[in-house]
Amino acid sequence: MQLTKDQLLSANEPGLRRHESDYNHLSDKLSEAGVAVEPVVDALSKFQVAIPSWALGAGGTRFGRFSFHGEPGTLEQKLDDVGILHALTQTAGAVSLHIPWDTPTDYAAVREHAAELGLAFDAINSNTFQDQPGAVHSYRHGSLSATDEGARQQAIEHNLRVVEIGEKLGSKSLTVWLADGTNFPGQRNFQRNLVQTEDSLRQIYAGLPADWKLFIEYKPYEPNFYSTVIQDWGTSFLLANACGDRAFTLVDLGHHLPNTNIEQIVSTLMLKGKLGGFHFNDSKYGDDDLTVGSVKPYALFLIFNELVYGMRNNPQNPDLAWMIDASHNVKDPLEDLLQSLEAIQLAYARALLVDQDELATAQGDHDVVRCQEILQNAFRTDVRPLVERARLSRGGALHPLGAYRQLDVRRELVRERGKHTVATGL
Amino acid sequence: MQLTKDQLLSANEPGLRRHESDYNHLSDKLSEAGVAVEPVVDALSKFQVAIPSWALGAGGTRFGRFSFHGEPGTLEQKLDDVGILHALTQTAGAVSLHIPWDTPTDYAAVREHAAELGLAFDAINSNTFQDQPGAVHSYRHGSLSATDEGARQQAIEHNLRVVEIGEKLGSKSLTVWLADGTNFPGQRNFQRNLVQTEDSLRQIYAGLPADWKLFIEYKPYEPNFYSTVIQDWGTSFLLANACGDRAFTLVDLGHHLPNTNIEQIVSTLMLKGKLGGFHFNDSKYGDDDLTVGSVKPYALFLIFNELVYGMRNNPQNPDLAWMIDASHNVKDPLEDLLQSLEAIQLAYARALLVDQDELATAQGDHDVVRCQEILQNAFRTDVRPLVERARLSRGGALHPLGAYRQLDVRRELVRERGKHTVATGL
Amino acid sequence: MQLTKDQLLSANEPGLRRHESDYNHLSDKLSEAGVAVEPVVDALSKFQVAIPSWALGAGGTRFGRFSFHGEPGTLEQKLDDVGILHALTQTAGAVSLHIPWDTPTDYAAVREHAAELGLAFDAINSNTFQDQPGAVHSYRHGSLSATDEGARQQAIEHNLRVVEIGEKLGSKSLTVWLADGTNFPGQRNFQRNLVQTEDSLRQIYAGLPADWKLFIEYKPYEPNFYSTVIQDWGTSFLLANACGDRAFTLVDLGHHLPNTNIEQIVSTLMLKGKLGGFHFNDSKYGDDDLTVGSVKPYALFLIFNELVYGMRNNPQNPDLAWMIDASHNVKDPLEDLLQSLEAIQLAYARALLVDQDELATAQGDHDVVRCQEILQNAFRTDVRPLVERARLSRGGALHPLGAYRQLDVRRELVRERGKHTVATGL
Amino acid sequence: MQLTKDQLLSANEPGLRRHESDYNHLSDKLSEAGVAVEPVVDALSKFQVAIPSWALGAGGTRFGRFSFHGEPGTLEQKLDDVGILHALTQTAGAVSLHIPWDTPTDYAAVREHAAELGLAFDAINSNTFQDQPGAVHSYRHGSLSATDEGARQQAIEHNLRVVEIGEKLGSKSLTVWLADGTNFPGQRNFQRNLVQTEDSLRQIYAGLPADWKLFIEYKPYEPNFYSTVIQDWGTSFLLANACGDRAFTLVDLGHHLPNTNIEQIVSTLMLKGKLGGFHFNDSKYGDDDLTVGSVKPYALFLIFNELVYGMRNNPQNPDLAWMIDASHNVKDPLEDLLQSLEAIQLAYARALLVDQDELATAQGDHDVVRCQEILQNAFRTDVRPLVERARLSRGGALHPLGAYRQLDVRRELVRERGKHTVATGL
Repeated sequence: MQLTKDQLLSANEPGLRRHESDYNHLSDKLSEAGVAVEPVVDALSKFQVAIPSWALGAGGTRFGRFSFHGEPGTLEQKLDDVGILHALTQTAGAVSLHIPWDTPTDYAAVREHAAELGLAFDAINSNTFQDQPGAVHSYRHGSLSATDEGARQQAIEHNLRVVEIGEKLGSKSLTVWLADGTNFPGQRNFQRNLVQTEDSLRQIYAGLPADWKLFIEYKPYEPNFYSTVIQDWGTSFLLANACGDRAFTLVDLGHHLPNTNIEQIVSTLMLKGKLGGFHFNDSKYGDDDLTVGSVKPYALFLIFNELVYGMRNNPQNPDLAWMIDASHNVKDPLEDLLQSLEAIQLAYARALLVDQDELATAQGDHDVVRCQEILQNAFRTDVRPLVERARLSRGGALHPLGAYRQLDVRRELVRERGKHTVATGL
Repeated sequence: MQLTKDQLLSANEPGLRRHESDYNHLSDKLSEAGVAVEPVVDALSKFQVAIPSWALGAGGTRFGRFSFHGEPGTLEQKLDDVGILHALTQTAGAVSLHIPWDTPTDYAAVREHAAELGLAFDAINSNTFQDQPGAVHSYRHGSLSATDEGARQQAIEHNLRVVEIGEKLGSKSLTVWLADGTNFPGQRNFQRNLVQTEDSLRQIYAGLPADWKLFIEYKPYEPNFYSTVIQDWGTSFLLANACGDRAFTLVDLGHHLPNTNIEQIVSTLMLKGKLGGFHFNDSKYGDDDLTVGSVKPYALFLIFNELVYGMRNNPQNPDLAWMIDASHNVKDPLEDLLQSLEAIQLAYARALLVDQDELATAQGDHDVVRCQEILQNAFRTDVRPLVERARLSRGGALHPLGAYRQLDVRRELVRERGKHTVATGL
Repeated sequence: MQLTKDQLLSANEPGLRRHESDYNHLSDKLSEAGVAVEPVVDALSKFQVAIPSWALGAGGTRFGRFSFHGEPGTLEQKLDDVGILHALTQTAGAVSLHIPWDTPTDYAAVREHAAELGLAFDAINSNTFQDQPGAVHSYRHGSLSATDEGARQQAIEHNLRVVEIGEKLGSKSLTVWLADGTNFPGQRNFQRNLVQTEDSLRQIYAGLPADWKLFIEYKPYEPNFYSTVIQDWGTSFLLANACGDRAFTLVDLGHHLPNTNIEQIVSTLMLKGKLGGFHFNDSKYGDDDLTVGSVKPYALFLIFNELVYGMRNNPQNPDLAWMIDASHNVKDPLEDLLQSLEAIQLAYARALLVDQDELATAQGDHDVVRCQEILQNAFRTDVRPLVERARLSRGGALHPLGAYRQLDVRRELVRERGKHTVATGL
Repeated sequence: MQLTKDQLLSANEPGLRRHESDYNHLSDKLSEAGVAVEPVVDALSKFQVAIPSWALGAGGTRFGRFSFHGEPGTLEQKLDDVGILHALTQTAGAVSLHIPWDTPTDYAAVREHAAELGLAFDAINSNTFQDQPGAVHSYRHGSLSATDEGARQQAIEHNLRVVEIGEKLGSKSLTVWLADGTNFPGQRNFQRNLVQTEDSLRQIYAGLPADWKLFIEYKPYEPNFYSTVIQDWGTSFLLANACGDRAFTLVDLGHHLPNTNIEQIVSTLMLKGKLGGFHFNDSKYGDDDLTVGSVKPYALFLIFNELVYGMRNNPQNPDLAWMIDASHNVKDPLEDLLQSLEAIQLAYARALLVDQDELATAQGDHDVVRCQEILQNAFRTDVRPLVERARLSRGGALHPLGAYRQLDVRRELVRERGKHTVATGL
């Protein structure tokens, strides 16, 4: 199923007058305050976030899963889903595959289908946290960190194979999330496991094409509950430095201990030129994988504030790979992703409104109250008209979620695919 | 020092055109969406938050304190400070005293001065967490929970004396924050301490005038670091039930373990008719006592959403006593309080925009996406024009912080009081 | 498979001399310090912990599961597994079933088999957190808290049906763990859900036989990640009070926010006569369900210290239902349970060594240092000889884990059951 | 006041028989298990921990302080206090000074007095978190991270001055705890502050004598409650690398977010040769500064297990500077320190009992259960006889706390110093 321009135009029609009025009012107001809105709208319209192929079906917990209807059963259908998101939002122009869940059979067809939908292939993801049917070695006792050479080599080779697949699709980076760790004190030797991991990552790095990047994710706990080999940004940073210039840390918002100041980590990594990618989601307790911006929207804004600062002031840091990494246990996955995309755009828009010069001046004056006011003014502004304008400018929907419902997309998908399909993934 | 109506009028003048435009635009937009703004503005204009007398000077940490200038050195000056806040915001029409720090000598004069400034005396606070010069018994080993009868009786009598003082000023409630607890496992007997506390609170309750309420605060840790007698809402609730109908739980936003769902606690207490008071502040790590709304404004909104729901649907719960309980280590205390008052009004305004009927319908339909949209729509709306309008309607400042700076209030206070005064308190 | 007395006797043989020496030395030492060891050994030998039927197979996480060999495929085999644990430890004399996973077909045979193994049926557990095949109503939107009457009635009836099953087996209590909650702000109405839950529990309570107890578990999060209806002990306590005298709170060690003082909760509940049951496990981050005592053994001891105090001083509180509720992702489940049983006995033994009178005296003297010493002295004592003696006194194994390995139990189970059986459960 | 050998001998007398029996029993038991005890006792007797000069008086919180009696009023008296601790325990043979609180006037006299007491001067500590009377620049807006050059240079020079003082006393390392940070989002620029800090530390490092080391402490929050410049080990590690080979990370046990796996951090730092120092204390909630081992003794043991491993296997890492950094709000400071010293020795002793070869074998076999058993066996062993033996071997007290009380040390100190002296410090 694909959405046509006509469908979107007619869905947008009723809201245009309101949008014009809101946009003009906001534009006037911001101009009066010395802020030009066109560059903001322009930046918003260029911002593209990858959708992971595993986020298109219902998620679950260890206690079970309530399935959803019309889930994509094939890679082509997954691309279709992302195509729908992109048609509506114009900000989901990439897909991030997970191997082996999404291994293509006909590469040319997949590339063509993606191109047709306007989708690029962003960072590709390996999986060494589960045993695959027919695997020679089990990852029960570790993969890239394993002391068993068989399992470790199998994990390294899997990553290299993922790179090969990615190359055929046009990806330019590999994301390694290493779940390796332990459940009990003493279970493994921390130092040996770190040494093995460093060696494995270097081997993978050595096998990367010259224009590829390696992203090293970190996470404090889960699925292991005593220790995780790459437990924090410090460990990831150390490993990225050990690999080389094209190895970077990847930050997933949900992968932090309670109360971590994530925006400061982002800032440090960009200063050091080592922030490579970003996984969006939200959480209240742990790696809850909730809809972006649904729990802590101000924290998301503060992070974007550092990202915008870094993108402007840190040429030493590469362009970032952006991805949503959320799970949807109680919502239509596509609706959830639309909400996430909206929340990301809103946070970005607000961060773009921050007058960095004014902020620097207030910081220089030690005017703490004024510094806070500057950030809060940006955050309190209703920036939805700017995001709407950015979408309209590229032919997207004024209100993606509204259009999705009005156009009855899910019913159509169920009609096409059947009710009880189950997407590969968790 | 007092601000005159003329001073405020002239400070407001330059911003009125912008305000009118913003207000009209928002008002139109909300009307179109079926929301009447007048009742919202009206509710905002009636909302009054007490300022604690100890929040008018610079705060500190155990590592030291950087002092501020022109702090109020007397109770009269403290009232003046609150008067300034109230003149600017029209939402700070009450003061909450702390005994012994603010024990009046001339009650009539204090009452008269407060009346002149339009200030009421809200809940009065006792202090049994510090030893006062000349005290017969030390609270080192506990106060209301003490097993030493001397210390315990002294603490009970102190509370009754605080009630007497409050009566003379027109207060109608006593807030008990009991810091009692232990630093080490085994230090005291949990059960004995709880029994003693229950008995002490009942004695205090028995001594309350018939139209007074007792508020029982809870806190998980600090200044004790292993256990605290009233560690959570459950313990406070149990004690309030043991005392009687006019004893209630008081919620301080900073007094929770990491990730606590505070809004649900608020909701449960109002359902059971046992939420008596509310202390506003914000925090990232513990009881950080930061400016309200400076770290987690969405959480504040969610809490207000429950408060608004409860105020409409829970006649079994009394009117709440609202107070700011923040500390100001790096800001002008009055500016900090202005920021807190603004944040409270904004959160309240957003909560008032939530269409409770529409939300109930979406909840009934299990339309999780729509439920989230309803809350986010309210939160994403720029409600500042509504809060401005509420202030203007009562003769306050359009932009309190701006007016405070423009009128050079702090310089005037320093001129009047001198640079190195120090307010009593922490 | 069952272990014979002879097998155990011969397994014990080589270690007896060492045990005698250790026991005598410790006994002398404690006697010298005024502590009689026989009552301690006696108490230890009487202590019985239930094994949940779902803990006999490998556990997993939402990221997958590495299976184990020789898992019990039937209820009879589950009983056999518990029988093995009990034969070895003499402290696992009860089983706690989970319905529908363990619904018996032939009740008489099941009862007979359990009796033969010396096992009682302790609290029985209902499940309304998953949809069962063929269920008319889904629990996707809640069960006991649901606003849909169909789902709610189905959940109530399921609980009553579980009670019927329990009655036929000799259980005397029902444990309700209610996973109901929400993933997003606004998703449901807190008050309505609590009211529904209270009503549902009252209906279940009304359907209990006169000699049954109702245990109400609480948990702050997971599988829901924004709110949980019964989020803390305060909510459970409130609901238990609403039900009646035979309704109690059940504490699961892993169900708390970071840094919660659990021992104080235990103490408060026993004082109020409302602690009904206890689920043992350990955790570092959340509800990690790790082996008891593997992460925080001192916290476990402190909790036992309160339990021992309560068992001696709180006649108002009933005898407790003890159960292990751990998961085993990387260990042989039976070995893991043996380690848990050992850790529980050790914590209990240490708590029994605390001289409560001496502690009360030190507390009365405000001798904080001495209070700490008393607890630490008990904890630092190597109490393994006492636990060994208690086991020997009942015909168990001196070293259960050693005997289990020496007798090659797992290999025998694999031989009997096959390698790839999978136990019902998570 | 100094304790004489005779006093200690007579205090030890009554317990010697018991000690001999316990030691012999344990020694036999361990020998039987293949563990030689002499090397353990030998290692214990060599282990020396520094006492910080600010830990000899009562501590407090921001809510107040309950003072203690007989606190040392001069640097000489502080040395006396440490001398008493060392005489009793033979494991407190160093003192760690804090400047400006302990700036000596007569260096020769101070050195001589320390030598007489058998005390060395370990790492010396600077203070740029408070303004000192007469200081030209305030640290209100930062010190080493400040954007104001005046304050920053003053802070750098203070550190260099501290090094000079340390040199005169024989110290060989400087510990920098940088409290710099912010209370509100936007208050300062993260990147600029980190750049300034790196530059400041390099200047200090450049001024160090060739045989000195620089220790860089980290802490997530407090006294600042939104951000801290050196918030975690990753930041400290990065800064130490930027300074050079003699710059290291210092780990303080209380300076971590909830649930952090500290032992893994220790392990990583030692592998990379960058762990320089260690501050001991314990905590339940934050930087509670409680007595070592009073809350989480097993975590302390696990950390020591990594330390022992690293000391044996990581020649790339220097000898560590050990210090207690606790506060004593409700205890006699000297008694508290005795309890801390005991807890450290016990954790070290237990870690020394771990058979590293056996552990490595079990890890290689993926025998998770056995790995856990090995650690737990060591931890469950009552190692007090080994620690006693180590103390006796050097002429210390069998039971330091008992001897301290029996010899009525505090009464003597009050007699000498008076009741109401107050030690400099927090």
